[in-house]
Amino acid sequence: MDRLTLIGIGTGNPDHVTLAGIVAMRSADLILLPRKGPGKDDLADLRRSLVASHAPGTEIAEFDMPVRSEGGDYRQKVDAWHDEIARAWEAALPSSASHVGLLVWGDPSLYDSTLRIAARLEPAPETVVVPGITALQALTAAHVMPLNDINAPVVITTGRQLRDRGWPEGADRAVVMLDGECSFRKLDPEDVYIWWGAYLGMPGQILRHGWLEKVGDEIVTAREAARASHGWIMDTYLLRRTPPAPSSA
Amino acid sequence: MDRLTLIGIGTGNPDHVTLAGIVAMRSADLILLPRKGPGKDDLADLRRSLVASHAPGTEIAEFDMPVRSEGGDYRQKVDAWHDEIARAWEAALPSSASHVGLLVWGDPSLYDSTLRIAARLEPAPETVVVPGITALQALTAAHVMPLNDINAPVVITTGRQLRDRGWPEGADRAVVMLDGECSFRKLDPEDVYIWWGAYLGMPGQILRHGWLEKVGDEIVTAREAARASHGWIMDTYLLRRTPPAPSSA
Repeated sequence: MDRLTLIGIGTGNPDHVTLAGIVAMRSADLILLPRKGPGKDDLADLRRSLVASHAPGTEIAEFDMPVRSEGGDYRQKVDAWHDEIARAWEAALPSSASHVGLLVWGDPSLYDSTLRIAARLEPAPETVVVPGITALQALTAAHVMPLNDINAPVVITTGRQLRDRGWPEGADRAVVMLDGECSFRKLDPEDVYIWWGAYLGMPGQILRHGWLEKVGDEIVTAREAARASHGWIMDTYLLRRTPPAPSSA
Repeated sequence: MDRLTLIGIGTGNPDHVTLAGIVAMRSADLILLPRKGPGKDDLADLRRSLVASHAPGTEIAEFDMPVRSEGGDYRQKVDAWHDEIARAWEAALPSSASHVGLLVWGDPSLYDSTLRIAARLEPAPETVVVPGITALQALTAAHVMPLNDINAPVVITTGRQLRDRGWPEGADRAVVMLDGECSFRKLDPEDVYIWWGAYLGMPGQILRHGWLEKVGDEIVTAREAARASHGWIMDTYLLRRTPPAPSSA
């Protein structure tokens, strides 16, 4: 492989794809496509259908996504998992493939491991990134709202950070990603407003918003029910706290 | 106007446009298009050419973007400016237009005023947002790098915040937007790494990266020269500081 193009495809709406993404799919010799296991076929199906619609002649090589082991040190587990994925890519690629494309959910820059996995390949291919719509933009578009207040900062963080450290310092708005545990429950719900979305951009999109005290439990319940019926869930949310200091604008 | 669709068009690469953006341009009766004054014709030209390429039958109504006044209270000036822009939209729109589209640089959620201006319209139209590629994704794609470290938070902030408050609390990575003054110069440059980009996604894209101590002055000089030759500049950057506590991963 001489060249690896990571193509951001957005969050599940096939129309999130950009013209640059389509050009990149068409110029690849082969698209490497992950199978994420039983119950997640619709995720692989979306990727297959994007290739079929926009680059119908392009060959596809599928691989089974390794499962990350539970327990132990988080960072070590993630590193070992990335090593395994790089080996799975190499095993799936025919030696003839010189320019490989990989469709990345959302955008390759945001809480995505693909760039770190690509860095493990030997010899290293030239890596190109085609940006895609992230869950942040899909969330704010669905709620028809800005991410930030005027001239104010926003923190992008993870569920794990929110559980371990509480409200992120330095901003009154925070977007939380990679949260499998509704970690907003660890916050004092008073004066926190939430805009939540699951399956953003997809036909099954679910949205909720309100003061955390009022809608928090409802989100937990809706999330559990949706995950049980779909077999998987992807969700994200934006939180705004009422600034603690009365002088803030 | 019954319906206003805000269409994120990315950062200047015409191929940043999404299929959803194209569908939205085609389904509008009329596209409202800002002229930002002498020397910025290429920005209006990009919008005109997107409409001509993807929705050639759609009517365009142009308006002159009011100029924000300098000095005085920042928040009050911004509010007055948004009022003025809303009036300029209303003056430019023929009464026959029922479904209006507006092409928004980047994404309508991120340091963009369009949603706040739309909220000033009376009667209020139904407002729809089509997400677009932001400067954050264009920056990280150009530098072929992730925005975040594994499981770590990132702050999105403004040049003004960086000047007034120094390094944003709560994260070791920060993206800085809306910075006309290279505000990174206010930071202690030791142990800060910068990835900078201007005209992201455009043919004139300029990238620099390195330790702030080494490349900071070079960025200031390159930015000045580019702005003088183009007549305008849009740039953004990601900063990473070496965590102050030695125990950090």
